[in-house]
Amino acid sequence: MDAEPTPSLVAALDIGGTKIAGALVDGEGRIRLRSRRPTPAREDGETVAAAVEAVLADLAASPLWESAGAVGIGSAGPVDAALGTVSPVNVPGWRDYPLVERVRRAATGRPVTLVGDGVAMAAAEHWLGAARGHSDALCLVVSTGVGGGLVLDGRVHPGPTGNAGHIGHLPVDLDGEPCACGGRGCVERLAGGPHLARRAVENGWRPGPDGDVSAAAVAAAAHAGDPIAVASFERAAQALAAGIAATAALVEIDIAVVGGGVAGAGEVLFAPLRRSLRTYAALSFVRDLKVVPAVTGTDAGLLGAAASAMAGPAR
Amino acid sequence: MDAEPTPSLVAALDIGGTKIAGALVDGEGRIRLRSRRPTPAREDGETVAAAVEAVLADLAASPLWESAGAVGIGSAGPVDAALGTVSPVNVPGWRDYPLVERVRRAATGRPVTLVGDGVAMAAAEHWLGAARGHSDALCLVVSTGVGGGLVLDGRVHPGPTGNAGHIGHLPVDLDGEPCACGGRGCVERLAGGPHLARRAVENGWRPGPDGDVSAAAVAAAAHAGDPIAVASFERAAQALAAGIAATAALVEIDIAVVGGGVAGAGEVLFAPLRRSLRTYAALSFVRDLKVVPAVTGTDAGLLGAAASAMAGPAR
Repeated sequence: MDAEPTPSLVAALDIGGTKIAGALVDGEGRIRLRSRRPTPAREDGETVAAAVEAVLADLAASPLWESAGAVGIGSAGPVDAALGTVSPVNVPGWRDYPLVERVRRAATGRPVTLVGDGVAMAAAEHWLGAARGHSDALCLVVSTGVGGGLVLDGRVHPGPTGNAGHIGHLPVDLDGEPCACGGRGCVERLAGGPHLARRAVENGWRPGPDGDVSAAAVAAAAHAGDPIAVASFERAAQALAAGIAATAALVEIDIAVVGGGVAGAGEVLFAPLRRSLRTYAALSFVRDLKVVPAVTGTDAGLLGAAASAMAGPAR
Repeated sequence: MDAEPTPSLVAALDIGGTKIAGALVDGEGRIRLRSRRPTPAREDGETVAAAVEAVLADLAASPLWESAGAVGIGSAGPVDAALGTVSPVNVPGWRDYPLVERVRRAATGRPVTLVGDGVAMAAAEHWLGAARGHSDALCLVVSTGVGGGLVLDGRVHPGPTGNAGHIGHLPVDLDGEPCACGGRGCVERLAGGPHLARRAVENGWRPGPDGDVSAAAVAAAAHAGDPIAVASFERAAQALAAGIAATAALVEIDIAVVGGGVAGAGEVLFAPLRRSLRTYAALSFVRDLKVVPAVTGTDAGLLGAAASAMAGPAR
């Protein structure tokens, strides 16, 4: 990732609103050991931190631990990599929580690198996935939320606070609905799973006998040809295309890598996404932009945290 | 600009649809010599190139020319800095025109750096203007078109082809009007001077006895309190705010520097712009974003071209 000597084994933490995953990852991106605990997201901050320490203790119990030269953390955001703090929206007990310091102590002084989960996913795809070999890329996670990270000039670009690539909160519909972030007309407000599903229901789509009104159920209906379900995916694709086109106009990327649960719907998302991109990405230097599915899957957070640890602190 | 030895005097070219400006610029940003010719924009490409050579010949006639170690070009876009070609929208005779090679020959082999005009403006503001000392900034030109450039990690970020920072063609209104770029709902379509003026006229604003329906005339009416003129500036400000907020979410900037003729309207643009930014830039890491006027004025293109020449080729 850079010119510094890189540790050949690192510890990685992937911290989300539902689970805390940990792993020891080697220099080839192989996961040598895993641990995982539920995130006690409704508890106080100390309890959440204790769960992180428990995951680290699982890793430290391995004889491999001694070889782990650094720790990388990919966390639900917002994060502040400059201050070493995190304030995950879905973990109210953590506000400006000094996670880096806490992990450094638990990892007996090893260097700790913190990035947002979108940046971690981009680091994983750039290291081992679909963005490999690309100098300038946007990697997106389209799931309950919409996140992302950037690769610029051949390196992951976390930004000063580790939040760059926040594609879900680009305003693409300036007269649109208020978003949970406090903004308006954000990509996530149109393309996040719950919004996509609710739009289908509001427009008259009805779930099957199981009552499942998730984005996955809407995806199944779209695959079966239900026009309302198809239209809801098309609208999500339109918002994603506008966000990707904005990114391309702004920083010149030649590939967008799309992962996450909603992206798992496959061509009902990707086909209208590629179509809409032709509408929004018209300038000569963005016209050849490719859109491809992510490949690192559910391990993206761990692998990206590992890649970030190997690259060392952002600045 | 970087660790390489930088020439203490360079030649700069600022190439637009109406004029070709040239200068010799020293290491402190002082313009030591100027030349300027109209752009024969409706003529064939060879005639336009001859005008560039004439400007260079004016500079070369000075005894200072021998000390000029490099040439920087800021050109109306799109440009392709990787290939050394330009295709300015308003100069139809130049399509993929090999400007760098042509200028290199005219400048007897001196190294030539090419960037888009928005990148040049950002380089000027970062070197000598309002973005000085900022590691991460967006600089915009709001004029007939809307352009811009980025500073990331303390350096101008031209992108692989020299077009990064194309803020005017971020889609912020995904169901909006078609844009001249081929896209839809772009910032420029709402905030460019002619669009701003036409919107005022369409909504019932009437010019004074001089019949002036320019953006400057609408600005004067807005200053005098005309509600339709005020509303047209507010709509432009809203689009610019969405674009600036998108940039902040994507690459983490802490300042946006706004120049160009429409920005010359002052508070009738800046006041609603700051207000709208509070709507669109709500995330913790973008909330403290400042918006300030540019200071390098009409010399921004020349000074930015000079800065780019001193920094050397982008990659």
